[in-house]
Amino acid sequence: MKNIAVLGATGMVGQEVIKILEQRKYPVNELYLFASERSEGFTINFREKEIEVRTEYESFIDSVDLAFSCLDEPLAREIVPKFREKSKLVIDNSAAYRQDPEVPLVIPEVNPDKIRDHKFIIANPNCSTIQMLVALYPLYQESRIKRIFVATYQAVSGYGRAAVDELKLELEYLAMGEDIEKSEEPVFPHPIGANIIPQIGEFNEEGYTKEEAKMVNETRKILNDPEILVTATCVRVPVLNGHSEAVSVEFEEFIPIHLAKDLLRKAPGVKLLEKNEDYPVPIQADGRDEVLVGRIRKDHVFENGLTMWVVADNIRKGAALNAVQIAELL
Amino acid sequence: MKNIAVLGATGMVGQEVIKILEQRKYPVNELYLFASERSEGFTINFREKEIEVRTEYESFIDSVDLAFSCLDEPLAREIVPKFREKSKLVIDNSAAYRQDPEVPLVIPEVNPDKIRDHKFIIANPNCSTIQMLVALYPLYQESRIKRIFVATYQAVSGYGRAAVDELKLELEYLAMGEDIEKSEEPVFPHPIGANIIPQIGEFNEEGYTKEEAKMVNETRKILNDPEILVTATCVRVPVLNGHSEAVSVEFEEFIPIHLAKDLLRKAPGVKLLEKNEDYPVPIQADGRDEVLVGRIRKDHVFENGLTMWVVADNIRKGAALNAVQIAELL
Repeated sequence: MKNIAVLGATGMVGQEVIKILEQRKYPVNELYLFASERSEGFTINFREKEIEVRTEYESFIDSVDLAFSCLDEPLAREIVPKFREKSKLVIDNSAAYRQDPEVPLVIPEVNPDKIRDHKFIIANPNCSTIQMLVALYPLYQESRIKRIFVATYQAVSGYGRAAVDELKLELEYLAMGEDIEKSEEPVFPHPIGANIIPQIGEFNEEGYTKEEAKMVNETRKILNDPEILVTATCVRVPVLNGHSEAVSVEFEEFIPIHLAKDLLRKAPGVKLLEKNEDYPVPIQADGRDEVLVGRIRKDHVFENGLTMWVVADNIRKGAALNAVQIAELL
Repeated sequence: MKNIAVLGATGMVGQEVIKILEQRKYPVNELYLFASERSEGFTINFREKEIEVRTEYESFIDSVDLAFSCLDEPLAREIVPKFREKSKLVIDNSAAYRQDPEVPLVIPEVNPDKIRDHKFIIANPNCSTIQMLVALYPLYQESRIKRIFVATYQAVSGYGRAAVDELKLELEYLAMGEDIEKSEEPVFPHPIGANIIPQIGEFNEEGYTKEEAKMVNETRKILNDPEILVTATCVRVPVLNGHSEAVSVEFEEFIPIHLAKDLLRKAPGVKLLEKNEDYPVPIQADGRDEVLVGRIRKDHVFENGLTMWVVADNIRKGAALNAVQIAELL
């Protein structure tokens, strides 16, 4: 039984972590919940008790055995090291430490053994990368992957609650047939209701966004394969929750479709939808643990290639569930 | 001055053709409008006159010089040949004749000379193919294209007015916070409001949809290049009008980004958005003639590759405008 802290407990991922700890009967002794001043006075139900959300965390660090950090990147950089200094393990959901060579970046279905190397921080990968690699790893074990093309269709929940609220408000304008009025500090630079936005995060010098660069760098680190080539286009779509991805992959060796299906049928964390017309859609993935894979077909462009369609609950498997699965492995 | 017929005059594409004939001052003598019984008694305004929509067309064929067919594929197969038999040229917007070796498949910015070969039918390509090739052809003239990856984000208007109505109704359910109730004969097999659907058209034996196969076959025919390899994933998104595409291309010769931008800046029918953060979004494309191209960057996967983001009004340049431009070339 462990004393668990959730940092950023009132955000979408924090709340999902708490829900999953309860659903999966994780052996929690004490649960400490922390959030910013905005959440002062809140309580969150856990195993039929109301637990107070605290704003002061430093005096509790000594009492904690394991912390889930669901903070944004700047806050994680500030707060996570304070736990590490006292040899308290943090599973961090932000991008702050993912590329740190001392920090394991772990998907339990892919590289669970890396957990052993931790120096009190384990990083949870980016949601888009997790679902892609859960789907590709069973195939990668059969043949090395050389190149990946991915175009994403990402739900607004990936950005957090403010983005969900912004989309819901815009849907009201649209339903009334009115023009969308953006707030003074909108989450998105364009309307997202009945629109799509091909930008997630800032642009780098090459013209790729942060989200796109994450899909390259995290894929290489998790597969421990710096040679793998990835081109990503990451796009926000007006979906509340559930990311979708069109993924084309080139293998070193040819993998026939029936073998790919066999491998995915028995793969951990994957739900294979075999028939063409049973492809997954994001509203089906909402609330589910598995990564849904469908529309597997021979790729036209790559000689040893497959193309597929991958959908998952980005808040759940893309963040909170993956973090709790890491904790379960410890 | 010509006598013009519009077949399917009350559909979204038909109405747009009529609007564009007026906007571009096409030399129309008489305008004959035809539609099914459902539109009986309707009139449509053209150059400040109300023109009756007729349901009986056969007695008018002799009077027509040029017809725009905005019919669906089965109706086009039935009606277009009746004009051809009497040596009346039809510009057909359906897929019925696009792969017929006797029928030119024309994008005026790409292969205008093909028009000369017509035997009274000229086919208008599929919307997704038109916008991709308007963007790629200026680059293709610099270096042959070997391979294309494309993932689409297609608006519901591509399916017609019933799909637009279905999305609007679903947006009302969502705005009220209610579950989406599908009608008895829905256009889409899943909710499209706050969802996406990776199926446009039926599946073929390979597991590709009709829309995806069109992007392969039409690209080859229009570029007159049967060797070009195309992998497409075509996805319906909850956008009212305006298709977007993530396109990665491999060239035979290296094209530096500055040259690609130079070529696109002066390309006909293209509006280049040069800065990363000025990428186009579909609501901007609505009502515009140009294909909007942005986010041009070096591709990671292909050695001589570029990746870009292409957006256009699928009803206008993707259908009606392209057809009128063909008529203007005649």
